[in-house]
Amino acid sequence: MIFELTVLGSSSALPTSTKFPTAHALNVHGRFFLIDCGEGTQIQLRKAKIKFSTINHIFISHIHGDHVFGLLGLLSSFNLLGRKYPLHIYGPQELELLLKFFTTHFAEELSFEIQFHPLTERKNQMVYEDKVLEVVAFPLKHRVPTFGYLFKEKKRLLNIRGDQIRKHALSINQIQSVKSGADIHLEDGTLLLNNELTEPAYRQRSFAYCSDTAVYKKNSALLKGVDLLYHEATFLDRDKKLAKATGHSTALQAAQMAQWSDAGQLLIGHFSNRYKGNEELLAEAQSVFSNTSVAGELMQFQVPLSRFNS
Amino acid sequence: MIFELTVLGSSSALPTSTKFPTAHALNVHGRFFLIDCGEGTQIQLRKAKIKFSTINHIFISHIHGDHVFGLLGLLSSFNLLGRKYPLHIYGPQELELLLKFFTTHFAEELSFEIQFHPLTERKNQMVYEDKVLEVVAFPLKHRVPTFGYLFKEKKRLLNIRGDQIRKHALSINQIQSVKSGADIHLEDGTLLLNNELTEPAYRQRSFAYCSDTAVYKKNSALLKGVDLLYHEATFLDRDKKLAKATGHSTALQAAQMAQWSDAGQLLIGHFSNRYKGNEELLAEAQSVFSNTSVAGELMQFQVPLSRFNS
Repeated sequence: MIFELTVLGSSSALPTSTKFPTAHALNVHGRFFLIDCGEGTQIQLRKAKIKFSTINHIFISHIHGDHVFGLLGLLSSFNLLGRKYPLHIYGPQELELLLKFFTTHFAEELSFEIQFHPLTERKNQMVYEDKVLEVVAFPLKHRVPTFGYLFKEKKRLLNIRGDQIRKHALSINQIQSVKSGADIHLEDGTLLLNNELTEPAYRQRSFAYCSDTAVYKKNSALLKGVDLLYHEATFLDRDKKLAKATGHSTALQAAQMAQWSDAGQLLIGHFSNRYKGNEELLAEAQSVFSNTSVAGELMQFQVPLSRFNS
Repeated sequence: MIFELTVLGSSSALPTSTKFPTAHALNVHGRFFLIDCGEGTQIQLRKAKIKFSTINHIFISHIHGDHVFGLLGLLSSFNLLGRKYPLHIYGPQELELLLKFFTTHFAEELSFEIQFHPLTERKNQMVYEDKVLEVVAFPLKHRVPTFGYLFKEKKRLLNIRGDQIRKHALSINQIQSVKSGADIHLEDGTLLLNNELTEPAYRQRSFAYCSDTAVYKKNSALLKGVDLLYHEATFLDRDKKLAKATGHSTALQAAQMAQWSDAGQLLIGHFSNRYKGNEELLAEAQSVFSNTSVAGELMQFQVPLSRFNS
């Protein structure tokens, strides 16, 4: 039941010899959700040993080259490998231009279907849902239409205790009721309270992705209690005017966002190349939010499974 | 007076964790000529410590993604860095689609001019010339319009020997004549033969690039005596039917091409991922043309300066 983020690319717009443009992969129970897809993403996926076949959903924040150019190569490789499963791509409406350019000129015969889910309205919206996960897109504040994504596990059925099943000889139907949270009335009139029959519930784990964006406090309501927050920190506080002018955040602002959101852990990246090393950016963020880490290529950040009262 | 090829990407269409899609940089006397531009080329250029400002000419073989997708990121970075010098791009007419897509959607305000030189005719044609170098494009045999490129140093002026200048008190005009190959008549009637006054001439060095292509013997006439030949070798001889069907070559055919061209050295790459390791491909090529090497990421192949009779 893994819930883990792998950083594939941590650079801002100008990659270096060691830092790739933006891309991340979230592993939710063994399935990978790709978030942004900068140039070289497919090479980074190979390095991280993430199988292409485990990726069925790609979430794109905005249509700047350093967040999307890797799509062309990745889709080409999916095609060369004869992929059959549909690929779902979520992102601002404008992304369609890139996808159409690709399918028109670089994939006359595509072996798989691309299902594009355009985000046309600037509002919070659930864009994906399965048995264990839901994904909400939310507007960010950048120079072009941009969305962040909140990945959150769904509430799970309760784990019923085996010893209680045996002790009370519970039927299949009774077990299902208990797992859904119900108390049980036995035929002899005894009331069995749900919390005596079950383990404490697992916490729903969550990851939020905010890049690229100026600081945008409003989103902290949606992100309340998020376990792992990735927030861009392109600039240092001393360059906050530049951050505002370009639709980016400072390390301080990223940390404030983590604080406002009661985040468990903050991950910062997308640093401008003007700064040598990460120390100053990290120190600035940690001065406000101590549990901050710097994103680096192929680093992994796991949110462990935990029970509510454990 | 360096003449050196750096391999930036050696893979065929599917990159791996260590092999990038096709790209090469030729250093001619300190200026770099980029040949093909697969995904990640800008990252490989950084690793090779090749300054972006030394690249003014890019030669594209054909419009398959693994040879061009890196253009988008590279042009974006040139723009972000505020490049001023025009960039010359050479390639099949169809490349214009990609360049227009880029300038329309990813570079509203481009800081530099892109001068596209489309190749519209299937014939040998000189596409570039400066004081020291000329570049001839020539047709290859692939599934889409594809061109190879021959880079050849121009004939140099002769080096006049200092001891002879002093001995005969030659004037500036006489020195120029000697450098151009003339004999000299002194006022006293003495005839000084040019080869007594000069060092033997330097050989004109050359590099030819053939990828992607089926074997195409006809080109060996143009390539006669080439110092360094890069020729794709996607398949082994046992898969030659597949090579023919897909417009690719076998290692054996690449070696035959080197033999027909009287090449000095053969470099093979673009191997299909179906083969584990390079040994069999190299052995096959060397069975026909012994001076064969395998192209690998960031490997450099220099053609040393030499005089005709040295």
